[in-house]
Amino acid sequence: MNPALASLSPQLSLDKIRIVLSHTSHPGNIGAAARAMKTMGLSRLMLVNPKRYPDNEAIARAAGAEDILVNATVCDNLDQALAGTVLAVAISARHRNLGPAPMQARTAAPEILAQAVSGEVALLFGNETAGLSNDEVQRCQRTVFIPANPDYTSLNLGSAVQLLSYELRLAAFDGRPPVVTKAVPFASPPATNDDIERFYTHLERIMVVTDFLDPQQPKRLLPKLRRLFSRTELERDEINILRGILDAVERKLPSTLQAAIKG
Amino acid sequence: MNPALASLSPQLSLDKIRIVLSHTSHPGNIGAAARAMKTMGLSRLMLVNPKRYPDNEAIARAAGAEDILVNATVCDNLDQALAGTVLAVAISARHRNLGPAPMQARTAAPEILAQAVSGEVALLFGNETAGLSNDEVQRCQRTVFIPANPDYTSLNLGSAVQLLSYELRLAAFDGRPPVVTKAVPFASPPATNDDIERFYTHLERIMVVTDFLDPQQPKRLLPKLRRLFSRTELERDEINILRGILDAVERKLPSTLQAAIKG
Repeated sequence: MNPALASLSPQLSLDKIRIVLSHTSHPGNIGAAARAMKTMGLSRLMLVNPKRYPDNEAIARAAGAEDILVNATVCDNLDQALAGTVLAVAISARHRNLGPAPMQARTAAPEILAQAVSGEVALLFGNETAGLSNDEVQRCQRTVFIPANPDYTSLNLGSAVQLLSYELRLAAFDGRPPVVTKAVPFASPPATNDDIERFYTHLERIMVVTDFLDPQQPKRLLPKLRRLFSRTELERDEINILRGILDAVERKLPSTLQAAIKG
Repeated sequence: MNPALASLSPQLSLDKIRIVLSHTSHPGNIGAAARAMKTMGLSRLMLVNPKRYPDNEAIARAAGAEDILVNATVCDNLDQALAGTVLAVAISARHRNLGPAPMQARTAAPEILAQAVSGEVALLFGNETAGLSNDEVQRCQRTVFIPANPDYTSLNLGSAVQLLSYELRLAAFDGRPPVVTKAVPFASPPATNDDIERFYTHLERIMVVTDFLDPQQPKRLLPKLRRLFSRTELERDEINILRGILDAVERKLPSTLQAAIKG
């Protein structure tokens, strides 16, 4: 692996990856591939002898990713699509007698990105029905497969592009997606233990006067409730709501019970 | 969480996962979802109020996965789709003010599978344009997002199902035993969503008749309480205790209020 790697930003390495679709039959799949690429920050699409292209169905399925289609290169043959690349990767579900030993997509992704430091990298996807020909696979230095249900490996072309693009993005960003807010609005500071204890005391008294908790036979009710609420890391707002509910309930109970709660 | 966990085979855990598509507009996406599921060994599809279904476009896009469509369940509402589940997971790109803190798909997958040991798990996907509503997200105990290009997060619905199914398959077959959690004294199996919903309904009515909750000015009390209890992964024993407390309180309230609770 090239040690210069670390100097390439995640987006710059994704920019060096070409998605090459060979002999695609359905223009809808070309549009779906463009959309899949863009969601993961890839941008360079090359089409080798597409059956129908350009086509309105491609545009429709690309949704907001028409720019990828506009900038796509249509090639007459694989040589043109692979020109200038330092690595070509065949995406194939089938095991071949010939060609490089297959790697899983997840294992291959970091290696593909590492090569992108040195130059352009192509990922080659075959026709929807026939897949890649042996000749095409042999033009590649790697074969990559997507682990799938052995009884039904028939991934849609757009889905295959989606999965590979996803693995590349995650590898590029090293598992750390940019911009994730962990903060959940509404969150308030943690409740104090004093407030939590006051809640438990109040809850216990209400359970006793409503005959839910028999102090002679407590049956571990309180430890169970403590265990439940301990797991939540109660916040200040939340303990106020819980205590507010108990106060409201208490005010509607018969006065004899209210007196019993006060002790 | 149940320690019997490790005994569930990868395929058996995948069999316990429901893919729930809510208010899907385009039947083609339903077919694409079925195909995506089958490639990864998932089989249980539920459709909440699909706009057009059944439809030939769904069948065409399903390719060899028509069996998933044939066995799919069409539901009138989300309650039906979530009935009997022990965990519901909202798939959402958007961050919400309410609802559980979002997790990345890759991080969430082993945890989702771990829960599948105890019972059925639902993954909830929203409408193509509008996504999931806040109400739908709040019915879930987890929110999961797919890391994407922040400038274009618009994943196709079928692609989103593909990526989640892929992560679940890889996690299931990884060989690593699914997340073993520390044994907790008193632990019981997870509560079902049905029981949890009945608890919320009962709590809400009691809050209303005790004047703690003004239905005209609800002030997000219910979403806040849902957020609190969603964090705890309520167990069956615990929901029984909580509901028991509400029953006991109700029986001691003045009869006019009891009548109001019954509605």
